[in-house]
Amino acid sequence: MILNCVAYEHGHKLADIGTGDIAHWLARPDAFVWVALLDPSAEELAQMQREFGLHELAVEDALKGHQRPKIEEYGDMVFVVMHLVEPHDDELLVGEVAVFVGKNFVLSARRRSERGFLGVRERCEREPLLLERGAGFVLYALMDAVVDRYFPIIELFEAELEGIEEKIFLPGSARGNIERLYDLKHSTSVLRHAAAPLLEMLGKLHGGRVPAAFVSTQEYFRDVHDHLARINGSIDTIRDTIGTAIQVNLSMVAIEESETTKRLAAWAAIFAVSTAMAGIWGMNFEVMPELKWRYGYPAALGAIVFAALLLYRRFRKVGWL
Amino acid sequence: MILNCVAYEHGHKLADIGTGDIAHWLARPDAFVWVALLDPSAEELAQMQREFGLHELAVEDALKGHQRPKIEEYGDMVFVVMHLVEPHDDELLVGEVAVFVGKNFVLSARRRSERGFLGVRERCEREPLLLERGAGFVLYALMDAVVDRYFPIIELFEAELEGIEEKIFLPGSARGNIERLYDLKHSTSVLRHAAAPLLEMLGKLHGGRVPAAFVSTQEYFRDVHDHLARINGSIDTIRDTIGTAIQVNLSMVAIEESETTKRLAAWAAIFAVSTAMAGIWGMNFEVMPELKWRYGYPAALGAIVFAALLLYRRFRKVGWL
Amino acid sequence: MILNCVAYEHGHKLADIGTGDIAHWLARPDAFVWVALLDPSAEELAQMQREFGLHELAVEDALKGHQRPKIEEYGDMVFVVMHLVEPHDDELLVGEVAVFVGKNFVLSARRRSERGFLGVRERCEREPLLLERGAGFVLYALMDAVVDRYFPIIELFEAELEGIEEKIFLPGSARGNIERLYDLKHSTSVLRHAAAPLLEMLGKLHGGRVPAAFVSTQEYFRDVHDHLARINGSIDTIRDTIGTAIQVNLSMVAIEESETTKRLAAWAAIFAVSTAMAGIWGMNFEVMPELKWRYGYPAALGAIVFAALLLYRRFRKVGWL
Amino acid sequence: MILNCVAYEHGHKLADIGTGDIAHWLARPDAFVWVALLDPSAEELAQMQREFGLHELAVEDALKGHQRPKIEEYGDMVFVVMHLVEPHDDELLVGEVAVFVGKNFVLSARRRSERGFLGVRERCEREPLLLERGAGFVLYALMDAVVDRYFPIIELFEAELEGIEEKIFLPGSARGNIERLYDLKHSTSVLRHAAAPLLEMLGKLHGGRVPAAFVSTQEYFRDVHDHLARINGSIDTIRDTIGTAIQVNLSMVAIEESETTKRLAAWAAIFAVSTAMAGIWGMNFEVMPELKWRYGYPAALGAIVFAALLLYRRFRKVGWL
Amino acid sequence: MILNCVAYEHGHKLADIGTGDIAHWLARPDAFVWVALLDPSAEELAQMQREFGLHELAVEDALKGHQRPKIEEYGDMVFVVMHLVEPHDDELLVGEVAVFVGKNFVLSARRRSERGFLGVRERCEREPLLLERGAGFVLYALMDAVVDRYFPIIELFEAELEGIEEKIFLPGSARGNIERLYDLKHSTSVLRHAAAPLLEMLGKLHGGRVPAAFVSTQEYFRDVHDHLARINGSIDTIRDTIGTAIQVNLSMVAIEESETTKRLAAWAAIFAVSTAMAGIWGMNFEVMPELKWRYGYPAALGAIVFAALLLYRRFRKVGWL
Repeated sequence: MILNCVAYEHGHKLADIGTGDIAHWLARPDAFVWVALLDPSAEELAQMQREFGLHELAVEDALKGHQRPKIEEYGDMVFVVMHLVEPHDDELLVGEVAVFVGKNFVLSARRRSERGFLGVRERCEREPLLLERGAGFVLYALMDAVVDRYFPIIELFEAELEGIEEKIFLPGSARGNIERLYDLKHSTSVLRHAAAPLLEMLGKLHGGRVPAAFVSTQEYFRDVHDHLARINGSIDTIRDTIGTAIQVNLSMVAIEESETTKRLAAWAAIFAVSTAMAGIWGMNFEVMPELKWRYGYPAALGAIVFAALLLYRRFRKVGWL
Repeated sequence: MILNCVAYEHGHKLADIGTGDIAHWLARPDAFVWVALLDPSAEELAQMQREFGLHELAVEDALKGHQRPKIEEYGDMVFVVMHLVEPHDDELLVGEVAVFVGKNFVLSARRRSERGFLGVRERCEREPLLLERGAGFVLYALMDAVVDRYFPIIELFEAELEGIEEKIFLPGSARGNIERLYDLKHSTSVLRHAAAPLLEMLGKLHGGRVPAAFVSTQEYFRDVHDHLARINGSIDTIRDTIGTAIQVNLSMVAIEESETTKRLAAWAAIFAVSTAMAGIWGMNFEVMPELKWRYGYPAALGAIVFAALLLYRRFRKVGWL
Repeated sequence: MILNCVAYEHGHKLADIGTGDIAHWLARPDAFVWVALLDPSAEELAQMQREFGLHELAVEDALKGHQRPKIEEYGDMVFVVMHLVEPHDDELLVGEVAVFVGKNFVLSARRRSERGFLGVRERCEREPLLLERGAGFVLYALMDAVVDRYFPIIELFEAELEGIEEKIFLPGSARGNIERLYDLKHSTSVLRHAAAPLLEMLGKLHGGRVPAAFVSTQEYFRDVHDHLARINGSIDTIRDTIGTAIQVNLSMVAIEESETTKRLAAWAAIFAVSTAMAGIWGMNFEVMPELKWRYGYPAALGAIVFAALLLYRRFRKVGWL
Repeated sequence: MILNCVAYEHGHKLADIGTGDIAHWLARPDAFVWVALLDPSAEELAQMQREFGLHELAVEDALKGHQRPKIEEYGDMVFVVMHLVEPHDDELLVGEVAVFVGKNFVLSARRRSERGFLGVRERCEREPLLLERGAGFVLYALMDAVVDRYFPIIELFEAELEGIEEKIFLPGSARGNIERLYDLKHSTSVLRHAAAPLLEMLGKLHGGRVPAAFVSTQEYFRDVHDHLARINGSIDTIRDTIGTAIQVNLSMVAIEESETTKRLAAWAAIFAVSTAMAGIWGMNFEVMPELKWRYGYPAALGAIVFAALLLYRRFRKVGWL
Repeated sequence: MILNCVAYEHGHKLADIGTGDIAHWLARPDAFVWVALLDPSAEELAQMQREFGLHELAVEDALKGHQRPKIEEYGDMVFVVMHLVEPHDDELLVGEVAVFVGKNFVLSARRRSERGFLGVRERCEREPLLLERGAGFVLYALMDAVVDRYFPIIELFEAELEGIEEKIFLPGSARGNIERLYDLKHSTSVLRHAAAPLLEMLGKLHGGRVPAAFVSTQEYFRDVHDHLARINGSIDTIRDTIGTAIQVNLSMVAIEESETTKRLAAWAAIFAVSTAMAGIWGMNFEVMPELKWRYGYPAALGAIVFAALLLYRRFRKVGWL
């Protein structure tokens, strides 16, 4: 589906145009065309390929989807794939946007994503001075929007991690913690797959040797690079903390287990002593003088209770109870 | 065994030729020859060495097999070894294909593999415009086919991992999980040995300085590079997840153990109290008034049951039972 | 808030100036202006942007705060973000200082930090020979001050780690140790985020190719680089030691648990033997000759005590008690 | 001890020569001299130093032994140290061979090794076309022989690892497994110390910038490089697998422990119930009607057995027994 | 304190000179001056700074001490900091030596160290041919001496590790092992901090681009580099082995624990059966025919013993006892 197809000149919108008129507008020296597709069909992409002269491998990637994020040069053209990560009921949905950027056109094709880039277009149109820089600036604006949407997800992760950390030293919560830690690790993998390859490849658009269309926007892409580096750093820290938390959780289980064993041992000892003493006075020897005593029974009970209390205090002191 | 020996010109098949005629066809300026061998004998390889002027070290590698995947230049010629990974009854079979690529010939030698590349040849012959690019494109087509066959194996791994993950927090499944995780790790090693060295060496065929025969197909090899990077990324994620899962599994065993110990402790305590009380009333003191009471026995039973229930409720509340 | 706004020439302070006069002083060939802001508002930054011709992206970073430490070049200007890490009641507060350095000006904007850089300015003014080197030297002085404040935090960490290590082999302290180790790991992350990106980027100000304003201060920045490398090395060692300590702590829990189990087993055995013996002499067989013996009872007690002692000594010997 | 001292020309052996004649033969433009020493004394090395003009640091290394494998250039000369790893009764013996290679000589000094390189010399002499390439080819032949001897050791490791893996999920074998895994890790370290530094340094003899004497043998050294890369890959995989196996082994111990605890808990419960019931009917209350019943005793036994069976079935069902 | 102050020419000692005469001797074209300081005061260093024209940052580093090992160039001068690691009663003392090397002088300042470099000076003076190479060679001699003193420390570590390994599979030694492993890890960190940064920076004195004063001694510094690489390799292996040993130790604790639990379970079962049987015959039913039997008691004892033996043999067989 074609969402928008607009021609711009000197940073200003000229007109919404039909796809058939693209060639006409591309011919104007200072104009550029910005087309946005949503879940494009093979036919639509084939048409765009003809209009803009796109490379077949890039078109195939945009059509098949499920690509790794990447920035590739095909001659004058730059082809960018980014992951769109959207939280949705405790899960992260991963969509994709493929962007073809030429000297005088930008074509974006979005897939499996609910949230569009209309706001990006509007913001660009409000700043003609920047938009005047052309297709490179549009790519920056799109990329900046995609990357900015990663930050709230990092915050989700950090909130979840803090939630787990609050309970990590709480007895009896080990099972829940470990499940949540495992799920969180999974989620961080999703975002890392979105951010890390992009970071790695972004050097192509700033720094050393960049394509002509991006020379004047280098500092903007460095800014995106910087954001991605921050996101990657946060993910690494979260993942490292998860690793430590899993270890700590295991330690806490072992410590709890150890305390249970001690308590068990202590009570077992107390009752074992009581039972052994009762057993002794339950023996059937004929000559057991204390059995004949008037206060033998209360004395025996007293002895048993005394022994139990003695042990109890002892165990208390060493911290087993 | 020689599977095919075909001469091509301008992207079109000229003829199936005999191995004796190879020299004749190689002499034609625009023709190239594509030979496919299966489990070649030393003699067959020696003959090919003479026809195409192959380097002895490359021939030796193709003959001995069990090589690491690699891409090597011998003067004008490029020598490529790839692993063929085929799932077979819960196991992965690893075959090999060695490809010699010269200016005007391609020679592939397949070993220990059930699935051939006939489909690749047919697809190439249906696209003369691409095949016209010559030997470099044929190498791409073969490489692309090999790498594409790695994807279903990644999916197998992911399915297996998901199967394990569904049971990882299930009490009593730890033993099975750990065995499956260990086996899965083994399997990922096999695929990693196939994909990682290839990825590392593929930079020789695109990007900076590439051999003359591959200049026009650079973008295709970058595409293969991209696929391999995706495969490597997936393997790394799977292996990382396996590591975490093994740790989590150990935690679950410890948690279960801890719960068993608590339950054991609780029941032991309940019966220890009962036994101790019964033991006390089983003592043989002469003066134990309650033994003479009419309802002493039911009262004693009641006391024992009451004590047991009290403990039971207590343990329930703290979650030990 | 504007803290200071001073013009310097040939290493000497000329005057406290108003922000309106900045342009006037910048016009003097050998003068430079050093402005210090605290928690600057958007308006103040906008004014500075106009006065000094700052890049919008850099200004935006300084305004939003929460940046990753970085050193970026915008044309002639260098933009630096550093984290200020200040210990505060068992916690580390992280502030930020953004520094814009041009050929003839330095503008620093500090946020969320209690401790200022007045001392740095005073020390610079006392050494005109160094201050004469201009804006580059001022940046060095600020950076040196920031980095020097990291060292006491490293010492805090090392003291805390030593405190934990003293108790790590002490029975019964596992729970406290693991909590402290986990918290310490968190704290080291904070400092690492401050120091590591700076170290990585400092190469831009010394070594190979440095901006013109920093050529004469290269050796000073290398010195800062060296300090940061030392800090990073210390953090890495602390983190590595924390990892080992967590493992060792788990081992200690397991060892303690093992010892408790042995002790439990030993006492359980001693009382089980006593109870079993008492139970036997409590059986109601008619013909049990020893029950009739005059000293049967003391003999039985003796036998029980003897058996218990025997076991006790045995367990002592093997180290279970 | 001098094993051999032979002069070659155009790939053919000229004569066994005395050490005194070396200078004479070195003077012939196309000849080269190949000397092999075993456990050389300081005097022998000093003599060789004079004959061939060896660098004192290299001679010192060859004399002292216990070097790290390395490839060093001293002006025109290349100095190579390789480890010889020989299996010997469950242990790996590590010998050393130092090789000095000049434009027209090869001097090898072997230490602490049982197996010589006579076979290498014979094979070289049988292939004059290759030997004609001179000292560089001889170095390749020696290096290839050394590296080829690492492969059977890898196979030993893999066999040992498979042997352990067969028992890793077998109850009761944890102690033996962990000892064998620890020993195997040690052994892999030995081979890694032999192979890894060599791999790292081999780039000096092929690829970019190589010494004059090695230009024509580049492809041979790349082949050795490839073998070493394969060996290193195998070692890494084995070490990684050992790491996982140690973790898995620990998990298996924990799982077994958990099962033992459950079984213990189950039997303890069954007997605790029996004992408690018997204790109740052993109480001495006067009014306990069931004690008077004719079939009270068998009924009581029946009740006890019934309760025990009930529990037994219950535990069976939940898998504790 | 000034230990020595000597002028050399053409590799020969000219005279012990006073610090006031340094400038005089530096003026002679072929002479160089070698000064050794021990725990120098601020005044002494200030004097040296004036004599030799040292850079203030380097002097500050030498004065403050507690630097990271490093090799820095200040114009013509090279400034080197090395750690001196000396074993002292189970601990490692870390001293420091700072060396300033100029075209015609060497100044070494040693701190917190007991063992001097007098031997190095003497050895240098005995070899005029080498000493003739000037200041660069003196630096090599000092560095070589420092690094050579690391080797016995590695041997200490290896001996300690072997001592632990001998006991690692010994039941009951887990606590001691883990303490010793933890301490050993600490010690290796100390040496690593001494060796690793030096190794990393030594590339500045050999290989690519080296300062003029070090061109003729490149091969010597490469030799030091090689020694440091060996030391680093050994440390890495030791640390890796410690990691594995800690894991193995934990496994051994778990295995021992598991065996204790089994043994405990077995004995508990044996006594529980005895007690239950005795309890049954201790019940007070009126009709219990076997109680009336003449040999009922011995028969009961026999039954109990028989049951116990049966269990004992059973447990023996499955390896629990």
